[in-house]
Amino acid sequence: MIRCLCILGVGLIGGSLALALKRRGYCQEIVGGGRSEANLQLAQKLGAVDRYELNPRDAVNAADVVVLAVPLGAMQDMCKRIQPSLSKDTILTDVGSAKASVVEAVRQALGNIPPNFVPGHPIAGTENSGVQAAFAELFEAHRVILTPLPNTNSHALKTVTAMWEASGAFIEHMDVAHHDWVLAATSHLPHMLAFGLVDSLSGLNEHDSEEIFRYAAGGFRDFTRIASSDPVMWRDICLSNRDAILAMMERYRDDLDEINNAIEARDASELLEIFRRAKQARDRFCH
Amino acid sequence: MIRCLCILGVGLIGGSLALALKRRGYCQEIVGGGRSEANLQLAQKLGAVDRYELNPRDAVNAADVVVLAVPLGAMQDMCKRIQPSLSKDTILTDVGSAKASVVEAVRQALGNIPPNFVPGHPIAGTENSGVQAAFAELFEAHRVILTPLPNTNSHALKTVTAMWEASGAFIEHMDVAHHDWVLAATSHLPHMLAFGLVDSLSGLNEHDSEEIFRYAAGGFRDFTRIASSDPVMWRDICLSNRDAILAMMERYRDDLDEINNAIEARDASELLEIFRRAKQARDRFCH
Repeated sequence: MIRCLCILGVGLIGGSLALALKRRGYCQEIVGGGRSEANLQLAQKLGAVDRYELNPRDAVNAADVVVLAVPLGAMQDMCKRIQPSLSKDTILTDVGSAKASVVEAVRQALGNIPPNFVPGHPIAGTENSGVQAAFAELFEAHRVILTPLPNTNSHALKTVTAMWEASGAFIEHMDVAHHDWVLAATSHLPHMLAFGLVDSLSGLNEHDSEEIFRYAAGGFRDFTRIASSDPVMWRDICLSNRDAILAMMERYRDDLDEINNAIEARDASELLEIFRRAKQARDRFCH
Repeated sequence: MIRCLCILGVGLIGGSLALALKRRGYCQEIVGGGRSEANLQLAQKLGAVDRYELNPRDAVNAADVVVLAVPLGAMQDMCKRIQPSLSKDTILTDVGSAKASVVEAVRQALGNIPPNFVPGHPIAGTENSGVQAAFAELFEAHRVILTPLPNTNSHALKTVTAMWEASGAFIEHMDVAHHDWVLAATSHLPHMLAFGLVDSLSGLNEHDSEEIFRYAAGGFRDFTRIASSDPVMWRDICLSNRDAILAMMERYRDDLDEINNAIEARDASELLEIFRRAKQARDRFCH
């Protein structure tokens, strides 16, 4: 149970967490904070938050637990703004998709990493954004990766763990750098490929690109769904997890070149081998 | 109505067409042909075909309409084998994903393009293959592209059109080269990217790749579903639509390089612009 929870950035993730905890009666009060009053009003109307404050400092004031659910690029500024309201007991966590950059943002803003800070990342989402896309079931049976630091205190870690478990998620621990590498491979790289594909096709002349999207069948829709994700969030992820993403992209380009070369050389057996290997791996891991 | 329909290659596509037409009572008899007797037995057991013949020549013998539903790489040989049984009235069509190569295979095998040949391509499928994956609803509300040639006769075109409409599909016409270009963009390129991604990740050392696939969330599963497609079919598509695929891949690599360079240069506004453009295009075309 949490007495007062503050969620800064009541969008898809922050809003869904609020709805999940509300439904469980897990918090006496949930306070929303964020830039857009219209969004916060909607969050209140949808029952995600009990009240909201436009000034983050006020939003955090009474909170026992604060969840930073703003875009990665806004983390540092948000931490600076709430610092005056953070007590030494306030538990701080976040939902950012790249952990090293959030840890650094917290360090820059607060001057050190408070022992009550628990970096976290729920592996859940949809291509939609905003509190209007939030739903209480988003985290059910999904993983939340927590990346506690050497100085993270165990009470804070337990509190954040219990909060996510109350939302239906199960918890895993990883170290910060490893998290960023795993996410670069499984999420950030695929998003780059999908954004790249849609951008490439929409860059054809208007008639051609309209026709191409008209003929796009189910596979294409599935494949490009993630290209409908929030551009600001993805800009921030690219800047925040730059090195791991660049390394994955380089690796990927080499592998794509292999396919390209095999097609160019009409190398039937090489093509078959690559496709078999890929199918085997996918069938094995994604049932 | 078709008196006797012969389907050569009773897999996902051939089997689903047979099941759809059976359900509508559209054919007096459906005869299956193909290499694997076990598969043909299963097709008969599942009610897709009334009988089957292991020798394609026998399968085609009584047929008014013959559907070539074998992999692209097997088209030419199959045409050669059935030639002795084709009368001047036998209507011939196919379901190949690349049309120029099928037209060329028919020409090579038969010495000319018979006026009763109607090249076709249903834009439907799943990542599964074989008649066990077939279902009668596969083509419902999906497009079938027919690419009639200058000498295609109108009776053959009408018959093939009516057959596909009976399966629930709607029909569009395109010329051969344009079809191959559109499909390279909407289907063949995305498959290359997905195969490349899964192959790239599974090429990490075993522990890493297991972990990566374990953390892969819904977006990754959707994105890589098409990498579970039949490797033989995709080898053949690459060889058959080589030039269009290579052109699309080159275009794509340039666009991916743009993203890569923007990440490398930490160019926030360029990244935002690319992602916005892509999201806009996808939201506009794929509702």
